[in-house]
Amino acid sequence: MSRPAHQRPAYHKINKDLFVLTYGALVAQLCKDYEKDEDVNQYLDKMGYGIGTRLVEDFLARSCVGRCHSYSEITDIIAQVAFKMYLGITPSVTCNNSSRNEFSLILDKNPLVEFVEELPAGRSSLCYCNLLCGIIRGALEMVHLAADVTFLQDRLKGDSVTEIGITFLKKREEKKYRRKK
Amino acid sequence: MSRPAHQRPAYHKINKDLFVLTYGALVAQLCKDYEKDEDVNQYLDKMGYGIGTRLVEDFLARSCVGRCHSYSEITDIIAQVAFKMYLGITPSVTCNNSSRNEFSLILDKNPLVEFVEELPAGRSSLCYCNLLCGIIRGALEMVHLAADVTFLQDRLKGDSVTEIGITFLKKREEKKYRRKK
Repeated sequence: MSRPAHQRPAYHKINKDLFVLTYGALVAQLCKDYEKDEDVNQYLDKMGYGIGTRLVEDFLARSCVGRCHSYSEITDIIAQVAFKMYLGITPSVTCNNSSRNEFSLILDKNPLVEFVEELPAGRSSLCYCNLLCGIIRGALEMVHLAADVTFLQDRLKGDSVTEIGITFLKKREEKKYRRKK
Repeated sequence: MSRPAHQRPAYHKINKDLFVLTYGALVAQLCKDYEKDEDVNQYLDKMGYGIGTRLVEDFLARSCVGRCHSYSEITDIIAQVAFKMYLGITPSVTCNNSSRNEFSLILDKNPLVEFVEELPAGRSSLCYCNLLCGIIRGALEMVHLAADVTFLQDRLKGDSVTEIGITFLKKREEKKYRRKK
């Protein structure tokens, strides 16, 4: 991009409500297009993936994060820097297994559902915010990290918290990378 | 809304790029759904209308604007307060007729098209940002003002500026209102 860095901040933020309502319109349209919740979920993930692959370059430029040396560090960056930067929230992170490649982001607040009281009728399997999973997956892919990213719990489905699970794949490649250090 | 006012600011803004890319995904989906550009434009306008009817209450609460006494004042509020608040830009306003019910918002910059270099192939009649027209129309409707809102010029179509035209309808009602003052 040719725009000088000092011109960017004024342009950097927009009103959240406009985004949240536009996202709602997108989900509603997909629910109209696809009968099965699984197809809507998959499509949101696919759209998010495309968005993630485009956002990541800008994220790395803006955030100035250094190279990460573990999945745990990467997940912390996602929660503390990326979520903060893009959605204004900081999920807490838990590690879910001893090989330290499965993590959860726990969202106390989820701005994307602020205008949503419950899932639409007959849409009980809808992952309303699945775009987020796709974005994380796409962004990670661009830094050569394959991951499964899915909602494990969702307040919209009656769970007590909203939880996004990230499972990093290709452990072998990480080991290779570690040996090179 | 039950959320205390002092808790809102931190939640109020989000990263623009996320919104712009999500909006792009919405337009792409509608282009997939509807063959004719006119249908996509109409659908974006309809979606925007729904968003506008929901945003306006929040806008009035946040902006604390007083009662306007002319279409000119209303258009200035849209340009200087609403566009600034929601998109971070301030279009300039021109009045286009002597009866002072036709105005234009001239957008030097349009954040919504920041990632769009040109209209998709075979989509030369697409009004990419038509959601904005619908939002303005919907918001005005909620304060009992009927208006036609359309793109008159669009940089994406090779015009030198992007121009949104607002024509306020129902002059008679305004006259009635003026008499009551």
